[in-house]
Amino acid sequence: MPHIALPEGLPGIRSAMAFRPETAKPLNELVEVLLRGPSTLSPGERELIATYVSYLNDCYYCQTIHGAIAAAHLDGDEALVKRVKADFQHADISEKLKTLLVIAAKVQKGGKHVTAEDVADARSVGATDLEIHDAVLIAAAFCMYNRYVDGLATTQPRDEALYRERGKDVARQGYVAISKTYLPVEAGVR
Amino acid sequence: MPHIALPEGLPGIRSAMAFRPETAKPLNELVEVLLRGPSTLSPGERELIATYVSYLNDCYYCQTIHGAIAAAHLDGDEALVKRVKADFQHADISEKLKTLLVIAAKVQKGGKHVTAEDVADARSVGATDLEIHDAVLIAAAFCMYNRYVDGLATTQPRDEALYRERGKDVARQGYVAISKTYLPVEAGVR
Repeated sequence: MPHIALPEGLPGIRSAMAFRPETAKPLNELVEVLLRGPSTLSPGERELIATYVSYLNDCYYCQTIHGAIAAAHLDGDEALVKRVKADFQHADISEKLKTLLVIAAKVQKGGKHVTAEDVADARSVGATDLEIHDAVLIAAAFCMYNRYVDGLATTQPRDEALYRERGKDVARQGYVAISKTYLPVEAGVR
Repeated sequence: MPHIALPEGLPGIRSAMAFRPETAKPLNELVEVLLRGPSTLSPGERELIATYVSYLNDCYYCQTIHGAIAAAHLDGDEALVKRVKADFQHADISEKLKTLLVIAAKVQKGGKHVTAEDVADARSVGATDLEIHDAVLIAAAFCMYNRYVDGLATTQPRDEALYRERGKDVARQGYVAISKTYLPVEAGVR
């Protein structure tokens, strides 16, 4: 049961966002820019970073919905998403993404864990400063979203099919557009 | 030395925000709503939560600048800010704020650490659902900001006087307005 009186019928962060539309707006805008905005990392790659960090933080809702969104961006390849969570060094992803996942995992533990060597490794396989920046901020942001979702004890249904369908919708429409379907219009959430 | 080529002459998160104005916009809007928007918690109380979480995450820049902003909101009471960091249970703050700091400290460890009892304790001394929500989200958000600042190894000057002066400016002007002084206008940061 959620710790506070969140709107019923909405899972995970959606219930918290409906409870507090004023903070939902920048939270949705941040994830939209980070995971879907112009970038040399594909939306699928960025969703994999979000999924992996959410997995490390043991947030069921976030790792499942972002895993579903990642799969939707990656031609439905759910096996790849599972492989990244379990053992990304042997997953069929680029060497560059592997080095960014190493950095993301360090950020999950704490910012000071990231070393100059981690960053040099990423650069050596072609990562740009902007990609390294975004990997750090995606990882940091999911340390927020995960704590927000679990810290309020939001409802997190265990039916993976729900996440699969929602994941396709989010991959198609984006975070800001889809938030219109459950946030009050008067909050000015775009 | 920062891990990536951040603009020189700006400390902490300001250098990261100047590097990536697209993400600076929602990051500033989030902290503005959370720490300065309409609330039954005073700006000083909310800055104390931000400061305490940043202290727990050992982020020098964030705990020092938000400590300075808190002090500016609290008639310059720097001793109170130090006391909250060292031993908030015996600081001269409300019982309600103490229970919210307990929740914030749990969120810092991980969202699942927050218990129904922690929340009941907060309610028993008058905390509302909105205040509990905001304490959770402030704590979660600073787990992001702290990791962002330290994960990029931003420059963090050790001269406390710099933070004191900046703290007064931020307390007076707010995060969104003051960001105009160092973010490129074309980024549309308000």
